[in-house]
Amino acid sequence: MKKNEITILGAGLIGSLMAIYLKRQGLEVSVYDKRPDPRKSPYSEAGRSINMALSDRGWRSLEQVGLKEKVLPLAIPMYGRRIHDEHGNTTLIPYGKENQAIYSISRGKFNQLLVEEGERLGAKVHFEHKCLDVDFTNNEVTFETPEGEKQFNPNVIIGADGAYSALRMSMQKQVRVNYKQEFIPHGYKELTIPATSDGEFAMDPNALHIWPRGKFMLIALPNPDKSFTCTLFLPFAGTKVCFEKILDEKDLETVFRSYFDDAYKLMPDLKTEFFKNPTAALINIECYPWVQGNSLLLGDAAHAMVPFYGQGMNCGFEDCYILNGLIEKLGTNAWDLVFEKYQKKRKPDTDAIYQLAMENFKEMRDSVGDPKFILRKKIEAKLHALYPNEWIPLYTMVTFSEMKYAEAYAQGKLQEAVMDRVMADPLITENWDKLDYEDIITQLETSKAV
Amino acid sequence: MKKNEITILGAGLIGSLMAIYLKRQGLEVSVYDKRPDPRKSPYSEAGRSINMALSDRGWRSLEQVGLKEKVLPLAIPMYGRRIHDEHGNTTLIPYGKENQAIYSISRGKFNQLLVEEGERLGAKVHFEHKCLDVDFTNNEVTFETPEGEKQFNPNVIIGADGAYSALRMSMQKQVRVNYKQEFIPHGYKELTIPATSDGEFAMDPNALHIWPRGKFMLIALPNPDKSFTCTLFLPFAGTKVCFEKILDEKDLETVFRSYFDDAYKLMPDLKTEFFKNPTAALINIECYPWVQGNSLLLGDAAHAMVPFYGQGMNCGFEDCYILNGLIEKLGTNAWDLVFEKYQKKRKPDTDAIYQLAMENFKEMRDSVGDPKFILRKKIEAKLHALYPNEWIPLYTMVTFSEMKYAEAYAQGKLQEAVMDRVMADPLITENWDKLDYEDIITQLETSKAV
Repeated sequence: MKKNEITILGAGLIGSLMAIYLKRQGLEVSVYDKRPDPRKSPYSEAGRSINMALSDRGWRSLEQVGLKEKVLPLAIPMYGRRIHDEHGNTTLIPYGKENQAIYSISRGKFNQLLVEEGERLGAKVHFEHKCLDVDFTNNEVTFETPEGEKQFNPNVIIGADGAYSALRMSMQKQVRVNYKQEFIPHGYKELTIPATSDGEFAMDPNALHIWPRGKFMLIALPNPDKSFTCTLFLPFAGTKVCFEKILDEKDLETVFRSYFDDAYKLMPDLKTEFFKNPTAALINIECYPWVQGNSLLLGDAAHAMVPFYGQGMNCGFEDCYILNGLIEKLGTNAWDLVFEKYQKKRKPDTDAIYQLAMENFKEMRDSVGDPKFILRKKIEAKLHALYPNEWIPLYTMVTFSEMKYAEAYAQGKLQEAVMDRVMADPLITENWDKLDYEDIITQLETSKAV
Repeated sequence: MKKNEITILGAGLIGSLMAIYLKRQGLEVSVYDKRPDPRKSPYSEAGRSINMALSDRGWRSLEQVGLKEKVLPLAIPMYGRRIHDEHGNTTLIPYGKENQAIYSISRGKFNQLLVEEGERLGAKVHFEHKCLDVDFTNNEVTFETPEGEKQFNPNVIIGADGAYSALRMSMQKQVRVNYKQEFIPHGYKELTIPATSDGEFAMDPNALHIWPRGKFMLIALPNPDKSFTCTLFLPFAGTKVCFEKILDEKDLETVFRSYFDDAYKLMPDLKTEFFKNPTAALINIECYPWVQGNSLLLGDAAHAMVPFYGQGMNCGFEDCYILNGLIEKLGTNAWDLVFEKYQKKRKPDTDAIYQLAMENFKEMRDSVGDPKFILRKKIEAKLHALYPNEWIPLYTMVTFSEMKYAEAYAQGKLQEAVMDRVMADPLITENWDKLDYEDIITQLETSKAV
């Protein structure tokens, strides 16, 4: 057992990026994934959350390992949310300043790029290795492979193996781990708006499209092949519009023509896709500690969150960035201490983004359709333009900065209270441009001082 | 597959009582337990939470199946908490009125009595059957037995298989189950105060003894053989007195002589027991739903709680009582509907007792040593004596009544607020007997009306 032989479970986005970081530090890295090598036998991704939104934290983590330029061609900038009402009218709500965007990116090619970069740097990546158990007493990992069971004794184990992490399950059996899993009442289903017959995007490609309908919503993100990947979020059951009540093509058509008519016209394969694609669940996972000796949980394995702030991947990449920084600083002689430090430092931030992700669901499916909400965003944008350091909208702190999530959360709550008072003015719609903006900043400063 | 063939997982206290209830309804019941039959190869219970406190909810559940008289000889009434200070002085704080007691009972014989009563009524009890998996699609249960794996297809499955329930784990893999497990920082270790050399109890047998020491405590419950089972609750680590810091006999002696000197003198086997018995963890488990089709979680499998209100077993027995009532009322034609109704009805109450159990830990290890706390109990007892229906102390509602736990909890919070105001009087120690008791009741009634 060599001192710095590191095993990473999971060759997904987070595991692959962590392998790149560790190889760049000159360490020995083996990555194991239960899936087959997608380059050899491409598995279908259809219907399984293939689109993500890359934002500043993600870019920073990629930039540090020199990958920004390679990733950019895979990504499409989205400068705002484009809100579709029932009549097909749309409104753009910018995400930040004029040049600020989040980037739509599909999992498949991006993941492959990261795996290949890791291999290029010398990481050994093994597919079809399903982790069955980790024995912490002997630091032994057991895999199921096409050639039968195999055991390894790495010095360090990093579990980047997702929401249903095998490393975490082994921890839960052997260690006092606090653990919480919570499903939200909504599920999701992926659908497609293909490119038009003349090979163009069927809608504005530089926005994240939202059809907010109160208790449910449809969203769409652009792909480089000029299609959009749509995700329909509905309650599983118990409401007027829910998955349980869409039993046949007629039900489906009724729902889409009533609520998403403009999208419906762009979805020729809706009926096939809807009944073929799985209805997937949305889970929140919190657990702590993340560390057992020389083993550590990273990314979704430690903190799976609902997708509504578009931060799951970005947060996982930031996990790698921060862990890498600590390894650089503290060295590789005492992994348990590095891991201990990492989890203490990181937990408050993942708690905060986890909370924000839950809160943002209501905003996306409900508030964004409200004129008062749009006005609120305008006032905040103006505050930010006038006082760029004193007032930073929450979305900007989370998405376009590297401020700690926990700080963004706390600051966001103070700003929310001030804005609630501002918006309580019954004449706000008429008077918003003439507000005493300096006084608003003073209110915020006062609330911080309390 | 017969219509009403019921499988119960777990031949512990809850599973066995449920089997008795169901047999009395004339149903076919098989009980499976992973442990060997204790009558054939008695396994050691030493060091594993063998003492419990049976109170009114438990007695009611036993009475309904005619078992009260059979159980009474195994139980020792405890009329109050006997508090031991550092100098060995003791104070009795009554649990309720003069004749109200909770009953110390050991798991072993009690469990055997319930198993045998079930068998007498025709339940088939199978030991050494470890449930490996429940497949809800085919209602198939797989067991590991000394004769190899076996599969059964019962119509109904009740998981009374404890905090680490196999039924629950199968649910978690196949269904959207919300789940939370939380360990508290404290562990526990069982110790013994044996009978004296002349065969008598070494302390007052009719009390639950507590040595409250702020962050930690020792407790002792009487046994029919005139010994006491003691439980030491300490943080695992991180405090001045914790399990991690008791490494040898010297450390142990220092802790016991400093904090539990009077008990220490009664514990000749302390040093052997302490280092031989395991240090066990304390877990809280919440999950929901409890039902998947015709399968239901019962007792600790659904809601394991810390032991500090002495309600774990009583609550599990009440689960059986309530479920039995619903089966009587609704019949056995639609188990899924009965189970659905049961969980909706029962969940708010198990949430409440779960919460109370956590809150009571602080009271036991800390507040009970405070003269103000004792005074508070006295005032509440007087209020209860003067206004028996208007003011019922929380402990009485939980322990000596069958009021729904959730109601007791809500009522308790209102009373707590009123008592906080009463106790805020700086002269309360002098004046408590001359309080305007009627006014206190008026305050409570007013707070209820809000």
